[in-house]
Amino acid sequence: MTNPYPRFGAGLWHFATYVDRYASDGYGPARTTLDAIELAGQVGDLSVVDLNYPFTPGVGLSEVKDALAAQNLAAIGITPEIYLRRFSRGAFTNPDPAARKAALDLMHEAAGVVRELGADYVKIWPGQDGWDYPFQVDHHALWKNSTDGVGALAQENPDLRFVIEYKPREPRVKMSFDSVSRTLLGIEKIGLPNVGILLDFGHSLYGGESPADAAQLAIDYGRLFGMDVNDNFRGWDDDLVAGTVHPIELFEFFYTLRKNDWEGVWQLDQFPFREDSVAAARAAIEFLKAVDRGLERLDFEAMQKAQDQHDALTALRLAQQALFSSL
Amino acid sequence: MTNPYPRFGAGLWHFATYVDRYASDGYGPARTTLDAIELAGQVGDLSVVDLNYPFTPGVGLSEVKDALAAQNLAAIGITPEIYLRRFSRGAFTNPDPAARKAALDLMHEAAGVVRELGADYVKIWPGQDGWDYPFQVDHHALWKNSTDGVGALAQENPDLRFVIEYKPREPRVKMSFDSVSRTLLGIEKIGLPNVGILLDFGHSLYGGESPADAAQLAIDYGRLFGMDVNDNFRGWDDDLVAGTVHPIELFEFFYTLRKNDWEGVWQLDQFPFREDSVAAARAAIEFLKAVDRGLERLDFEAMQKAQDQHDALTALRLAQQALFSSL
Amino acid sequence: MTNPYPRFGAGLWHFATYVDRYASDGYGPARTTLDAIELAGQVGDLSVVDLNYPFTPGVGLSEVKDALAAQNLAAIGITPEIYLRRFSRGAFTNPDPAARKAALDLMHEAAGVVRELGADYVKIWPGQDGWDYPFQVDHHALWKNSTDGVGALAQENPDLRFVIEYKPREPRVKMSFDSVSRTLLGIEKIGLPNVGILLDFGHSLYGGESPADAAQLAIDYGRLFGMDVNDNFRGWDDDLVAGTVHPIELFEFFYTLRKNDWEGVWQLDQFPFREDSVAAARAAIEFLKAVDRGLERLDFEAMQKAQDQHDALTALRLAQQALFSSL
Amino acid sequence: MTNPYPRFGAGLWHFATYVDRYASDGYGPARTTLDAIELAGQVGDLSVVDLNYPFTPGVGLSEVKDALAAQNLAAIGITPEIYLRRFSRGAFTNPDPAARKAALDLMHEAAGVVRELGADYVKIWPGQDGWDYPFQVDHHALWKNSTDGVGALAQENPDLRFVIEYKPREPRVKMSFDSVSRTLLGIEKIGLPNVGILLDFGHSLYGGESPADAAQLAIDYGRLFGMDVNDNFRGWDDDLVAGTVHPIELFEFFYTLRKNDWEGVWQLDQFPFREDSVAAARAAIEFLKAVDRGLERLDFEAMQKAQDQHDALTALRLAQQALFSSL
Repeated sequence: MTNPYPRFGAGLWHFATYVDRYASDGYGPARTTLDAIELAGQVGDLSVVDLNYPFTPGVGLSEVKDALAAQNLAAIGITPEIYLRRFSRGAFTNPDPAARKAALDLMHEAAGVVRELGADYVKIWPGQDGWDYPFQVDHHALWKNSTDGVGALAQENPDLRFVIEYKPREPRVKMSFDSVSRTLLGIEKIGLPNVGILLDFGHSLYGGESPADAAQLAIDYGRLFGMDVNDNFRGWDDDLVAGTVHPIELFEFFYTLRKNDWEGVWQLDQFPFREDSVAAARAAIEFLKAVDRGLERLDFEAMQKAQDQHDALTALRLAQQALFSSL
Repeated sequence: MTNPYPRFGAGLWHFATYVDRYASDGYGPARTTLDAIELAGQVGDLSVVDLNYPFTPGVGLSEVKDALAAQNLAAIGITPEIYLRRFSRGAFTNPDPAARKAALDLMHEAAGVVRELGADYVKIWPGQDGWDYPFQVDHHALWKNSTDGVGALAQENPDLRFVIEYKPREPRVKMSFDSVSRTLLGIEKIGLPNVGILLDFGHSLYGGESPADAAQLAIDYGRLFGMDVNDNFRGWDDDLVAGTVHPIELFEFFYTLRKNDWEGVWQLDQFPFREDSVAAARAAIEFLKAVDRGLERLDFEAMQKAQDQHDALTALRLAQQALFSSL
Repeated sequence: MTNPYPRFGAGLWHFATYVDRYASDGYGPARTTLDAIELAGQVGDLSVVDLNYPFTPGVGLSEVKDALAAQNLAAIGITPEIYLRRFSRGAFTNPDPAARKAALDLMHEAAGVVRELGADYVKIWPGQDGWDYPFQVDHHALWKNSTDGVGALAQENPDLRFVIEYKPREPRVKMSFDSVSRTLLGIEKIGLPNVGILLDFGHSLYGGESPADAAQLAIDYGRLFGMDVNDNFRGWDDDLVAGTVHPIELFEFFYTLRKNDWEGVWQLDQFPFREDSVAAARAAIEFLKAVDRGLERLDFEAMQKAQDQHDALTALRLAQQALFSSL
Repeated sequence: MTNPYPRFGAGLWHFATYVDRYASDGYGPARTTLDAIELAGQVGDLSVVDLNYPFTPGVGLSEVKDALAAQNLAAIGITPEIYLRRFSRGAFTNPDPAARKAALDLMHEAAGVVRELGADYVKIWPGQDGWDYPFQVDHHALWKNSTDGVGALAQENPDLRFVIEYKPREPRVKMSFDSVSRTLLGIEKIGLPNVGILLDFGHSLYGGESPADAAQLAIDYGRLFGMDVNDNFRGWDDDLVAGTVHPIELFEFFYTLRKNDWEGVWQLDQFPFREDSVAAARAAIEFLKAVDRGLERLDFEAMQKAQDQHDALTALRLAQQALFSSL
């Protein structure tokens, strides 16, 4: 019997603890890569994880492989940490050529780990590429460095997929890859088949996009290589538990994926600063299962007909009834 | 002797009065197209205006020509009002094909007026094209209608330029052409040489863009066909007097234009709801003249050097000194 | 048999048509006060309406009385239009003393209508009291005029209640009575028993408040005299149909009212620009009935226990299950 | 000869290095309290600093005294770190009574340090007091704990001043003391003379307030005990260098202080993540000196006259000319 639900995944950082500029001693005791894998296994519904790289000090690749196997987990992607101190003034766009090279080296290394683990992609999350002040950068040069860097990386690793996770800001006051459209513009300029988007629902939401519209656009360009979900209050990347604040827009997001027969993993990108991370993952997956059941119940034909007339009241009634009765 | 300053222009609506959903009796007595032209003439520094079309009832094209001539003004563009009641559910994307056709007819008519007046462009401002609610529209279809519509129009009028003025929202809760990147994606898809962007500084600012970065991107694609300025508080299209709230970012915007040898008209798009419209235009132009003088004073080489190092403090000191000493 | 649901009401403007600065010809043909009352009657679940004053030209008080009676409606409040052209630079704070006096006169007149109709309150919605630009006003004087004006009005009409509907902005770029806390500060300064707050859910939401927290605070000061609901995208007063975007926070709002035994009318303040207004009201009320049923199902004791521990995951699961199973 | 300028100060954290959830290895090598004091001394224009407490491990009070003396600095305040891990679920409002007690103990300890150093105030910055999710907390209880806690502290230390630094959010998704009005409401409820506000310009700006209006209100209640400045993009507490983005509103803020004869220290609260911290402080002070000179040049009488008429254009011209000619 096949699993009735989509495959679920999570960024492994979901099971880490965090620091910020205030709780500089961390929201809990530090955890190793292996600790986090064990917690991911406890969730019970996860099939895959996306792992930060480098692993925590002292943890080797073979240990990671064993730990994943022990939890019945596979790696879906590797996220090289091109946002640590070394790269705080940029990875692809650092004014220091040595830092740029170090970032590329780290990403090539991550590519090797992707091959070793049989994962799907190298995640590119250029959180330090951007600017903080007016007049700080030459915008032409900054963007060129951004796309040239990704392009070079993708060209030298044609056997792998590279997914860009765009975000409006944080940690930079403004990030270069800030929106679905900007990222697609860049990808089209690069012109390689192995560069795509990992669409984070929350980044899209707080960037003022409709995540459903963003997903549709990325799909129309054949570039929606991955996605993950969470929630926020539209002003910041709060990385709250999915479905807790904006259930309707989350449902519209998955409706759009289903309608387009998009069949990737439903991943979580949550930061449970003050919550139990296993419980936070389970709460989200419980909601996502309801979303999946809701899509089964939804009358797609009636929805299409309502949308063809831009009939919001009918469309929303259909959506509310399908989703809420599935919880 | 040549004029030491750039050419200045304004949307003719700057000299109208306004209604909104509260002051439904208007912020002042209604003005005709001819009244507005006369007020535009009183500013003293304007060379061109962008005119709404249709003109107010009873005003004919020849009268408009005469009125412009009397004020020593030329038409730079025509803005067909594809956002009135007839088009409140969309112009290019209206679910009613008859409304879509009416919108295209009006734009073709506006194209004729552009030819008659020897203006530069037909302005496309699709403020009613978008959506209000989650689930309201099929995003694929909506975007396709948006780009197909603009494409058809541009193809049938290859002798004219069409400029799209993007904006995040208002009057729709969300507009289709919402950002510089989305608009460029659409324009690239259309693939015609006569479609470009009219970049409104305030739309960019409150959309979370850096207007300077947006201008650079549009220039890099060869699509910056026009621009206008104003100011706001980054949360709405307040259309305040240029330079009153964000002088530094306005200066960076013009710095970017100058650096790229962009030589179009410096237009105003202000809505002085409660101010004297001639005084509001003069206040803005006074500031823009200071911007122009500031650009003369600015050490472009030193600025480039600072930006190459992402040295915000040096770059900002250069910018502040050049601009503020020019007021 | 008693009605199982709370009493429902609506601002009569819900059934008007609207203009804005783009669709200056209006989103539909103009409607009279009597037209709107008839539409309100068609909703079927409304018990009361809040009426703008003056009525549309040519409509007298006795006609309004008859029209209300014919639809089985009562007046809950009167909203004097202190935001029309005459007051576009302020009602209580207009720099012109004659305009200030005219505003007060209109409000006194509205007080008379409240008495005639046996309504509950005069609504004070000072949308034009505030400022647009930095440096525009003397903030001490502006705020003093705001509170002095309301105080004088309330003192001269001690038999009536005056409710202030605060809002962050629109039509002014910034309003004086902008938040629940500012308004309570003002009310405490005024120090009269007959001045309170009408809390608009959407104003609170897009002002960055938690509407539930705002309601609790107003209740703790004994000043929650009324409320109305709608929805938006947290960036503007979109006045969308209640429950369509933020169902959870709407439920938390009503949970807070119920927990405090607050027993007023559940009013609608929606602006269905492009929707059928009767259908939009019915859709909202259908949702509000589900909210009411959800409150019946909700385990208040378990919720309190979860909240005492700040246990968000448990609290949200309780809320989701109670609300969504009630739709 | 007296110093022509106001006294300048800074939060000592200005001279620390930072971590965030991405650059978890920090934006630079860790610095001790003593390191930071030495850097503060290098600025050259600082008279006072506000110190975090506890000091970095191994640094004692007498060393701090010596270090301050060596740099010719005095302590203006002490900021107990009631936002570290121990207090991540709240200081005054933590659901765990032991954590609440620990927070109060730390603040009492800080009060002792204030006495020892002859400083002016204990800073209360309750960044972890608030909530993250809808339904998470009982808002009545949360606010009562907030004000009761501050009240108890102030009552037990009547010889000292306690200043609350409000902020909309971060690190909590929503903070209890979120705005000037809410904080004043709480202070009035507490009813003690030794509780006031430390107004952070940037917190006010990104909270949607006019910082000038906020300052005026706090002054009108006799509660403006301190202030600090920085800049941001109105969406987050970016803590950028003062004057770099919003010079006009910064000038209006100081204009309001001067007009009310407020004579406290002009403090900096900047987080130069990627800049040299001494250079960042100097850049800000250079700007603040221009602000001070600008206030000398400004025609206060003409400004008042313009503001009495709500004449934004005249008021802004006066302000621009006074400020910009002073740089």
